[in-house]
Amino acid sequence: MNFASDNAAAIAPQILDAIGKVNSGSALGYGNDAVTRQVERKLSDLFERDVAVFLVSTGTGANALSIAHLAPPWGAVLGHRDAHIMTSECGAPEFFGGGLKLIGLAGDDGRISPAELKRALEREEWGGPHHISPSVLSLTQATEAGTVYSVADTAALAAIAHARGMTVQMDGARFANAVARLGAPPAEITWKAGVDVLAFGATKGGAMAAEVVIFFDPARAAGMPERRKRGGHLVSKHRFIAAQIDAFVTDGLWLTLARHANAMADRLAAGLRAKGLAPVWPVEANLVFAMLPAEVHKRLQAAGASYYPMHRDTAPRAGSSRPDDVLVRLVTSFATTTEEVDAFVAVVGG
Amino acid sequence: MNFASDNAAAIAPQILDAIGKVNSGSALGYGNDAVTRQVERKLSDLFERDVAVFLVSTGTGANALSIAHLAPPWGAVLGHRDAHIMTSECGAPEFFGGGLKLIGLAGDDGRISPAELKRALEREEWGGPHHISPSVLSLTQATEAGTVYSVADTAALAAIAHARGMTVQMDGARFANAVARLGAPPAEITWKAGVDVLAFGATKGGAMAAEVVIFFDPARAAGMPERRKRGGHLVSKHRFIAAQIDAFVTDGLWLTLARHANAMADRLAAGLRAKGLAPVWPVEANLVFAMLPAEVHKRLQAAGASYYPMHRDTAPRAGSSRPDDVLVRLVTSFATTTEEVDAFVAVVGG
Amino acid sequence: MNFASDNAAAIAPQILDAIGKVNSGSALGYGNDAVTRQVERKLSDLFERDVAVFLVSTGTGANALSIAHLAPPWGAVLGHRDAHIMTSECGAPEFFGGGLKLIGLAGDDGRISPAELKRALEREEWGGPHHISPSVLSLTQATEAGTVYSVADTAALAAIAHARGMTVQMDGARFANAVARLGAPPAEITWKAGVDVLAFGATKGGAMAAEVVIFFDPARAAGMPERRKRGGHLVSKHRFIAAQIDAFVTDGLWLTLARHANAMADRLAAGLRAKGLAPVWPVEANLVFAMLPAEVHKRLQAAGASYYPMHRDTAPRAGSSRPDDVLVRLVTSFATTTEEVDAFVAVVGG
Amino acid sequence: MNFASDNAAAIAPQILDAIGKVNSGSALGYGNDAVTRQVERKLSDLFERDVAVFLVSTGTGANALSIAHLAPPWGAVLGHRDAHIMTSECGAPEFFGGGLKLIGLAGDDGRISPAELKRALEREEWGGPHHISPSVLSLTQATEAGTVYSVADTAALAAIAHARGMTVQMDGARFANAVARLGAPPAEITWKAGVDVLAFGATKGGAMAAEVVIFFDPARAAGMPERRKRGGHLVSKHRFIAAQIDAFVTDGLWLTLARHANAMADRLAAGLRAKGLAPVWPVEANLVFAMLPAEVHKRLQAAGASYYPMHRDTAPRAGSSRPDDVLVRLVTSFATTTEEVDAFVAVVGG
Repeated sequence: MNFASDNAAAIAPQILDAIGKVNSGSALGYGNDAVTRQVERKLSDLFERDVAVFLVSTGTGANALSIAHLAPPWGAVLGHRDAHIMTSECGAPEFFGGGLKLIGLAGDDGRISPAELKRALEREEWGGPHHISPSVLSLTQATEAGTVYSVADTAALAAIAHARGMTVQMDGARFANAVARLGAPPAEITWKAGVDVLAFGATKGGAMAAEVVIFFDPARAAGMPERRKRGGHLVSKHRFIAAQIDAFVTDGLWLTLARHANAMADRLAAGLRAKGLAPVWPVEANLVFAMLPAEVHKRLQAAGASYYPMHRDTAPRAGSSRPDDVLVRLVTSFATTTEEVDAFVAVVGG
Repeated sequence: MNFASDNAAAIAPQILDAIGKVNSGSALGYGNDAVTRQVERKLSDLFERDVAVFLVSTGTGANALSIAHLAPPWGAVLGHRDAHIMTSECGAPEFFGGGLKLIGLAGDDGRISPAELKRALEREEWGGPHHISPSVLSLTQATEAGTVYSVADTAALAAIAHARGMTVQMDGARFANAVARLGAPPAEITWKAGVDVLAFGATKGGAMAAEVVIFFDPARAAGMPERRKRGGHLVSKHRFIAAQIDAFVTDGLWLTLARHANAMADRLAAGLRAKGLAPVWPVEANLVFAMLPAEVHKRLQAAGASYYPMHRDTAPRAGSSRPDDVLVRLVTSFATTTEEVDAFVAVVGG
Repeated sequence: MNFASDNAAAIAPQILDAIGKVNSGSALGYGNDAVTRQVERKLSDLFERDVAVFLVSTGTGANALSIAHLAPPWGAVLGHRDAHIMTSECGAPEFFGGGLKLIGLAGDDGRISPAELKRALEREEWGGPHHISPSVLSLTQATEAGTVYSVADTAALAAIAHARGMTVQMDGARFANAVARLGAPPAEITWKAGVDVLAFGATKGGAMAAEVVIFFDPARAAGMPERRKRGGHLVSKHRFIAAQIDAFVTDGLWLTLARHANAMADRLAAGLRAKGLAPVWPVEANLVFAMLPAEVHKRLQAAGASYYPMHRDTAPRAGSSRPDDVLVRLVTSFATTTEEVDAFVAVVGG
Repeated sequence: MNFASDNAAAIAPQILDAIGKVNSGSALGYGNDAVTRQVERKLSDLFERDVAVFLVSTGTGANALSIAHLAPPWGAVLGHRDAHIMTSECGAPEFFGGGLKLIGLAGDDGRISPAELKRALEREEWGGPHHISPSVLSLTQATEAGTVYSVADTAALAAIAHARGMTVQMDGARFANAVARLGAPPAEITWKAGVDVLAFGATKGGAMAAEVVIFFDPARAAGMPERRKRGGHLVSKHRFIAAQIDAFVTDGLWLTLARHANAMADRLAAGLRAKGLAPVWPVEANLVFAMLPAEVHKRLQAAGASYYPMHRDTAPRAGSSRPDDVLVRLVTSFATTTEEVDAFVAVVGG
């Protein structure tokens, strides 16, 4: 019963196999190999335009490098206050960005609303030399609350950002889950809706350690090779990170895996709902948030269930009135089984 | 009728004279001169202990250098959300601090309360490796709202910070005004109450361009000479910046000037109150905030009064109900005259 | 005939197997797993003391993080002018170190001599506030020239550095090759000789993407978890990077692989020598540098041999008198075969 | 007999007077005042084109801000190895530039030659992703050796830099001395010869603390206001720094002062030459370098002469054969008197 994180899962067998398949002979390092070339082509096909592609090993690296590339050091990066870049990257975007500033916006269900973005931008304190300047809008897709921005949501937010001269970065650590839910082509969800740069995650979706920074306008990527290298994020035996992404996007594996994770989350949500514990936020990806009575939490712990309670100041926002209730995050993955889900729900039921 | 800022004032004559008095012969640069030695002694006397002293030309430099010296790049600096470092230094602390993060706290009347500080620290999300760590508490004395932290306030806040392993920096751009109001010895207000480093401002108080970073524990200043130099903040003809501070703290000039500025603010507040426009925050230093009806604002503008309206999102906090009301900041200085104040109030009266 | 780089080699089968073996079930991310614990123990055993261990995916990351951790932003890092950190990391140490400075020292055969280090330190321009301060000595073991520092060399250099208050970092991207050649215990070559922090490389030695920053004094590692995280270098599915290092150091695999690579270099050197092309620097690890007549270079290219010519300004140092000669670097690896070596030598022979 | 530095001199009386003259009434801070506007116009007139102007208090600030603005963090800044930015700013350009790298070039008489610049650029190791990219050529005018780049020198060097896509920054801490010597219009010496940005110094020339970063193409200055502010280099009571520059460039004061300083250096050089101690480098500005026999050095010290010996590794370059000889730097200023010079020479004569 592991619902701690999708990065607690193993490597999807197809992806590990892909690593093994390219493990023979020699290949030039640092991306000068045939597998990397092939991945670049496949990603351009997938997104229906020529894209510039930078593979890195971590999601934090992908976010920090892409944000730093889009914003000047005196730029403000606006995102949801619960976004990963805001809370869980130990200041990586600020470090890579030379001291830029992240501004956390409120928003229901983990999503920024156009109204909230407008409100933030209408404050009078933006602009040099005394104030930092709004530079990047960062959207997390799917969000940390397990919700998804619709194509229309994204387009509306991106339009506001672009009108202000900002660019739009998407933290897609769980992009696959969002695409699987939305059922729209990746191009629709990203550049056609105004996204300029996507940090496309594969690790949580089933890879070992592989993320891709995708520039939909390759001209914007000038200098990015140097930025990645001096960040220590240019992998030397590059064919092996390329092989992971290659397998991930081949024959729709990424969506197959994501659909399964999402289905497990839906099943878990339904099970909890049946026990009177409706999820506190809509379940649209592979995360379920539930407000557990203390005794249920204890019972699950005793049964060996693995998951994380959320920090206290999020709980009130989840609408809980009982002080002992525990807000918990339950994450499913490509490897979650129906048995695990059902066992968990059974323990909840007591 | 100039109430735009205390840095719109000129140089106090005693300070300009002091510059002229040391303007003969030669003196080694970069602080290796007799005037600098004398200032160091006087500041140690003033604060009743041996202090390490670093003179710089700007308040932003003093804040950024001191904060960067106290916090690691993965540190969080907690301060009031309206503090100068938060809103008006274009990210200087973040830049000097290698990408550290400023966390703005709410608080009535421009002051952080111990309860709010505790609440912020009790969130569960602090600490490595994923989260930044609370490192510095920055208190603005006097605050941007024109209020003052009492000695007890400061001690209570500093105790919470120290208990958490944090250090306490004080942005004292208007420290003179606070001391003049509190009537307590500078030592009581600072290190005896738990302040570790003070950015002691003289520019707003009457100097040309002179601020001092004061380390109450000189051992903590190791590396600060290098930090100042590589920040471009080591003035070469150093005797002239030293002469400014020397004059400022000699014979209590700094307090004489600050008392006048404060008295002018009090007079202005009384005048406004008499016209039914009570200041929105307590007037404890040299700043008066008033919610002006639109017609009064227009009349003042027409009469040539100089002052700044505040940004919109502060207004609601000031409790205004009429949408056309304008929240304005009125700043007095050592150079403000009773005639200016009375003329302003007269125009307000219509 | 691939002699381009040891990172053009594949993954050693034992290491790929090890990844596969831990690929089942779930494990907490970010190093909170059993494999990581085991690696920490094995590395402490290997180095004969409790060490603090930080796994990362790239050698540039390992070097930059460790150097930045040891030097203040106003520190100077002294190393050989041809060292990887000096020439081939696109400024990563400078970026991670907040603008620190690398100082390249001359030295025969890729090695810094104690005399050269002393000479550099005796210059009068060190020290604050105007000058940067010598902070870190970085030794590359094995060097970029394919030579090795003896235990006595390392101890002599480290003693000079420590006497000056500096720390000693070792770039051990090819540490295995050096240990295999020296035949001394890793502890003798590192901390017993004065090395404070080792960037212990496994990637060039046979791993997929795995390097370890090892602090011989764990107390010195305070803050390093945050530094790694905000650098984007904390791998989420950590068991898989741990498994690589685990396999690498188990049953002496790392030395077995390195001995093979070294033996191939020796065979190549002997072959070239027999053809009248003695290596220009001593062959002590897995790199052979030869000055090829232009026609030999052309013949090798035509035969499909893969290797890199060196940049022009190194050639004169190699003592070549003929302008058309090409200085080339030939790198062997765990995967190099005697057939490849012999075929190469045969083409050289014409 | 003070020849320690031109920043050991006082403030030229005309400049101190100018500060006093604007010291009445109020003026908006941060450059929004009439004196600043006037200085901008005068500098545009002086340089015969519309320039963008940024006043700061220190030469290190002016250099670091301008270089950081021109180079990306992965840029290389090429300059003479004895330039102030290389040796005496404690890494300020590296800090402001996010970890960029300064590359010191050799060159006779403190000047880079076109041949040396070409040689450096022809190395094969430039360029991403592994290597940093040449971005800025920094020329010091007058040089640290007291020599001057002719207009033709500057044009030749700038042409090489521009052909490589680099920009040209000029450290003009002693620009006045160079212009006074060259007798050419400032425009000829700077932008007409290919200089893109000039750090125009006034402090060493007679101001209290005032330097100007001048962008000859104002479009290139986008973002510079923010950069200056977040560096803490935007002076609040801006009229007083503006008044210094205004006086400096009015009625040719800067050149009058510089001509005097240069004449004093010429007189000193002639006096030394007459005593058999010809300066080791050509005397073209206000610096004289002489190789003093130990007994002469002692006699001067005993007589109270103030000057700095140079660091040891420069001495051999100066061609000295006697181990006890001391290479000394003698700096004249607008305040140096013929009596001081003659007294110094008399003591040398014994």
